[in-house]
Amino acid sequence: MEKTLVKKLFRESESFIGKEVVISGWVKKIRSQKKFGFIEINDGSFFKGIQVVFESELDNFEEISKVSISSTLVIKGKLVESQGKGQSIEILASEVEIFQKADLDFPLQNKRHSFEFLRTIAHLRPRTNTFSAVFRVRSVLAYAIHKFFQENDFVYVHTPIITGADCEGAGEMFRVTTLDLDNVPKTEEGSIDEAKDFFGKETNLTVSGQLNVETYCAAFRNVYTFGPTFRAENSNTSRHASEFWMIEPEVAFGDLGVNMELAEAMVKYVIKYVMDECPEEMEFFNSFIEKGLFEKLNNVLNNDFGRVTYTEAIEILENCGKKFDFPVEWGIDLQSEHERYLAEEHFKKPIFVTDYPKDIKAFYMKMNEDDKTVRAMDLLAPGIGEIIGGSQREDDLPLLEKRMEEMNLNKEDYTFYTDLRRYGSFPHSGFGLGFERMMMYITGMTNIRDVIPFPRTPKSAEF
Amino acid sequence: MEKTLVKKLFRESESFIGKEVVISGWVKKIRSQKKFGFIEINDGSFFKGIQVVFESELDNFEEISKVSISSTLVIKGKLVESQGKGQSIEILASEVEIFQKADLDFPLQNKRHSFEFLRTIAHLRPRTNTFSAVFRVRSVLAYAIHKFFQENDFVYVHTPIITGADCEGAGEMFRVTTLDLDNVPKTEEGSIDEAKDFFGKETNLTVSGQLNVETYCAAFRNVYTFGPTFRAENSNTSRHASEFWMIEPEVAFGDLGVNMELAEAMVKYVIKYVMDECPEEMEFFNSFIEKGLFEKLNNVLNNDFGRVTYTEAIEILENCGKKFDFPVEWGIDLQSEHERYLAEEHFKKPIFVTDYPKDIKAFYMKMNEDDKTVRAMDLLAPGIGEIIGGSQREDDLPLLEKRMEEMNLNKEDYTFYTDLRRYGSFPHSGFGLGFERMMMYITGMTNIRDVIPFPRTPKSAEF
Repeated sequence: MEKTLVKKLFRESESFIGKEVVISGWVKKIRSQKKFGFIEINDGSFFKGIQVVFESELDNFEEISKVSISSTLVIKGKLVESQGKGQSIEILASEVEIFQKADLDFPLQNKRHSFEFLRTIAHLRPRTNTFSAVFRVRSVLAYAIHKFFQENDFVYVHTPIITGADCEGAGEMFRVTTLDLDNVPKTEEGSIDEAKDFFGKETNLTVSGQLNVETYCAAFRNVYTFGPTFRAENSNTSRHASEFWMIEPEVAFGDLGVNMELAEAMVKYVIKYVMDECPEEMEFFNSFIEKGLFEKLNNVLNNDFGRVTYTEAIEILENCGKKFDFPVEWGIDLQSEHERYLAEEHFKKPIFVTDYPKDIKAFYMKMNEDDKTVRAMDLLAPGIGEIIGGSQREDDLPLLEKRMEEMNLNKEDYTFYTDLRRYGSFPHSGFGLGFERMMMYITGMTNIRDVIPFPRTPKSAEF
Repeated sequence: MEKTLVKKLFRESESFIGKEVVISGWVKKIRSQKKFGFIEINDGSFFKGIQVVFESELDNFEEISKVSISSTLVIKGKLVESQGKGQSIEILASEVEIFQKADLDFPLQNKRHSFEFLRTIAHLRPRTNTFSAVFRVRSVLAYAIHKFFQENDFVYVHTPIITGADCEGAGEMFRVTTLDLDNVPKTEEGSIDEAKDFFGKETNLTVSGQLNVETYCAAFRNVYTFGPTFRAENSNTSRHASEFWMIEPEVAFGDLGVNMELAEAMVKYVIKYVMDECPEEMEFFNSFIEKGLFEKLNNVLNNDFGRVTYTEAIEILENCGKKFDFPVEWGIDLQSEHERYLAEEHFKKPIFVTDYPKDIKAFYMKMNEDDKTVRAMDLLAPGIGEIIGGSQREDDLPLLEKRMEEMNLNKEDYTFYTDLRRYGSFPHSGFGLGFERMMMYITGMTNIRDVIPFPRTPKSAEF
């Protein structure tokens, strides 16, 4: 008989009530008495488990009664409305096949475990409530991002992971090599003989796909990347991982205003999609992980995002009467405390801060007429601070080259990029969204290690 | 006035005919006479360009007439049914703004270029017809894969890119390191001091996410990975790249039969999706890249895939009367010539070959009762040979450990994997599909370098 997913039994229970069904899955809980017992089975398809009632009429009643947590069962029985509290439906078992009895030292017995401990068993933690919720949401959120862009005629571009240049200078990089580290080949001058490496030169793991994706923007108009990026920074915080996923859309013939509209539409779309598709998981986060999560997310969904220039934001901070650890003056990079004050206390909703001083932003951002600020935007959200960073790109070749000179970049490394301004330059804008940051925002999880299946951080690359 | 996408003008032309529209894009072709001229504009949203008619009444008629290929224009005008041949609609321009005049040395003038040459300008080649078609299809195919799995209740898992172990032994790996190659730290014994590396040990780029994703299969039942994988093999062929994307689904409580059904359903779904969503691009491939492409793909869509055991396949090959370069006998790994004979000449449709000799397959494949063959499957397709490889996994711990011993694997490296057989083992199966191989199959492109935006191959990691 065909197995039915527990998700289906819950979501379409009316069509199954009174009928014979077969399910298979893992024992989450079991309690038994002389004449009958209850097993909660999770089959992986649904956040909640289903209750199975088994009675002493079954041949293997004794064996079932002693089955250990996480054992694998195949159960045949009738789906009925539950008489007990806490569940709407249950299965009255007519057959219980024990596929495998789990060893008794299974670490996830029914007690609370710290997230720190669960990180040490990253291969088992998705079987807990919290991580089952986190990683189903991760999947749905990733899909929501693709769906949003595809439905809006964006072309998905797989930008390269291994790169020959640190184009953006965005951070420290991991070297990728096949050289024998025990015996690194040297040139006659005594330096590393890079020509002997696999790609014939030094290569690293990408820190951003933006410059690559801009070349595809010139061909497909609206494009995005969504892939892994890497930072070899030795910072052990709850917000940094060495390997994380990033979304980077790029829009041709769109200025900073279009860019902000796109970011706002995307953020709202993906939050709504996850709330619609994962009601059980989101309810769990709202109840047990971040009290007030729904309020926070609904505030994002139901407000037009604010817009303020950096210069105005500095004035607000200077005049707000609040004392900050980092003093405020025009020219500083906004700190987390400043960003959160603006979003949480002053505007009380997500806001775009635009037109930052050129000296604290990247070379490719479009210069404003004041020659002091660039067409950058950061999206600040209550409860997290910066969640998106983007800009309109400099499309004027002489201005771009001037900025590259000022910042001591080697123009020859960027001919593919300057070519875009030579052969049909066009106004364009884009932004970057850290996927894990969005995950943390939507779930309320506070450590990035707990939203990545197998996190990579300094001194840790387990599994 | 809001800009309209050219895609919309073609797909919904009836609602735009006779109306004023604004478009923006790049000049693909231009020819002009004394009183009027024609420009073909591609705006990136659509495979085909749209014809713009401009007349000498325009103030800047002279300037427009001289505009270079790839220059960027913003055009206002009325959409009308075309009087000329070769297009259904055109725009009668009332205003033409020249945003930027492309330099005259733009390499993609209107003549044929070899794919070899176009690889050297990978940042510009998506502006050609062929690569515009290839990379739009790549985006749509990637989305089709996500859509198929998400609609079938699969959870998408981001398995790690940086890995601490060569678990599968699937191939040579790239080392990931932050050690100073000029001065590699050594231990007192003179070996590399791996503890000083970023992760405190040797790490490499992943060759497969399968073992990691199996752990999530035990939590979510149906799961898949879709991400970049890497091989440091020094093979310069048209079918191998050092960086490529792979799809690896894994199904709990599913045997090899379920696995084959899944693979067949997926292949048919994604081919049909691309044919439906990219009619212009597929028409182009069918006409100019692979004559008979539609016939080949429709043969896949309209047939039930065949099934044959390896042992039966060997008999067919031995008795077919054909002479092969590689002699056929039970125990050999099937070569491309054998695979193509089976799919193209004998069965004339895609076929699954199952139950291969254990000695030519990986340690984790489920042993058959004959103790000689394992529950492996390869999908062979006419026109390409092997396109998918998979298996049912060994769920019996003693049998799995026996295979690991026979193959001299270090059990301690695999405790996370054997734990799955200890704590609720379950029948499960999965397969791997090389994304680029599927791209080549669907588009008819014959070199893997031409279906990856910025390909990485030995001695080549440009852009």
